[in-house]
Amino acid sequence: MPKLYNLDRSGNCYKVRLLSALLGVPLQIEDIDFLGGEHKRSPLIDLNPFGEIPVFVDGDVVLRDSQTILAYIARKWGGEQWLPIDPQGLASVMSWLAVAENEIARGPADARVHDQFGAKLDAGLARQKAARVLGLMNAHLANRQWLALDRPTIADIACMPYVALSNEGGISLEPYPSVCNWLDRVMALPGAIPVPRLASAHAA
Amino acid sequence: MPKLYNLDRSGNCYKVRLLSALLGVPLQIEDIDFLGGEHKRSPLIDLNPFGEIPVFVDGDVVLRDSQTILAYIARKWGGEQWLPIDPQGLASVMSWLAVAENEIARGPADARVHDQFGAKLDAGLARQKAARVLGLMNAHLANRQWLALDRPTIADIACMPYVALSNEGGISLEPYPSVCNWLDRVMALPGAIPVPRLASAHAA
Repeated sequence: MPKLYNLDRSGNCYKVRLLSALLGVPLQIEDIDFLGGEHKRSPLIDLNPFGEIPVFVDGDVVLRDSQTILAYIARKWGGEQWLPIDPQGLASVMSWLAVAENEIARGPADARVHDQFGAKLDAGLARQKAARVLGLMNAHLANRQWLALDRPTIADIACMPYVALSNEGGISLEPYPSVCNWLDRVMALPGAIPVPRLASAHAA
Repeated sequence: MPKLYNLDRSGNCYKVRLLSALLGVPLQIEDIDFLGGEHKRSPLIDLNPFGEIPVFVDGDVVLRDSQTILAYIARKWGGEQWLPIDPQGLASVMSWLAVAENEIARGPADARVHDQFGAKLDAGLARQKAARVLGLMNAHLANRQWLALDRPTIADIACMPYVALSNEGGISLEPYPSVCNWLDRVMALPGAIPVPRLASAHAA
């Protein structure tokens, strides 16, 4: 069974759990002591010298970077459905993986890590970037159901968590109705698991 | 013939030209008026709403994001050589595309765009991030010829330009001999074209 070094409240770990749930791939979840810096020292740092989570281990395959892990799971257990390999289909999905890796990470995800976890970064700039990417996504989704293709792909799984958690970075999704409808569609996929919202975590 | 909306001194445009040269894919190069903001208005903004270059057009396929364009070219004209599709091989390459999209973009590339083009960003932080990723790459390359597999892939093409241009962001590569040897290997590939260094551009 593949193993996920996990932090429940991390959107990047959540996206791996979400795709695994959608595909029915069982995971051995190992929660790490994030605040204690377990990912910054041995043995975890030896699995991922970049010192980040998620880390995914499947036999002798060790993977870092959440988008990369999604691609691996999609190719190994999802056939052509979630990540096609024809040049155009692959590129269409990858262009949104890049948005997850860049614009969404530097926008709503940075705003959240600032507001909730006290990260030292320019929260105003993060919110500016969030507004830009959310506006672009809203326009893109105005006449589409899914980000990359006419079906859900790992593009949707990669982009949705930190968009869904925008409110935790002080960003309202009200101006972006097409984005909200798209989030609802992702959550309605058979097998989907809920986004780990901090408010409910605190209430629990 | 595919068309590349191009800026010669952009490392992201260069990596598309480099892979095309290595694979013998002829390109119609259209240089854009970057300082005049041609990429921020119609018709180019309609091809890429994110307002960035490179933009790549192949028939009715329109692509943004340099890593995505590399993947498309590799899959369409490069067979399995430059981007394999088995889960492990694909993931190995993609994990380095993520480094190009994230750590290298926020490190040496940001330091260069600050020093050379006056971008308003924290150059000290960019140089810190550059030192970290260059150290990690140097360790990774100590006993490897190429970043992802036992042969060159688009991982190498995606990561090399802004590493090669580190000096234009005030970063010396002297502490990273394995990185330097790797850069030399990329440049020695049959068909490789030189990195667009600003100094030589000025001298020309």
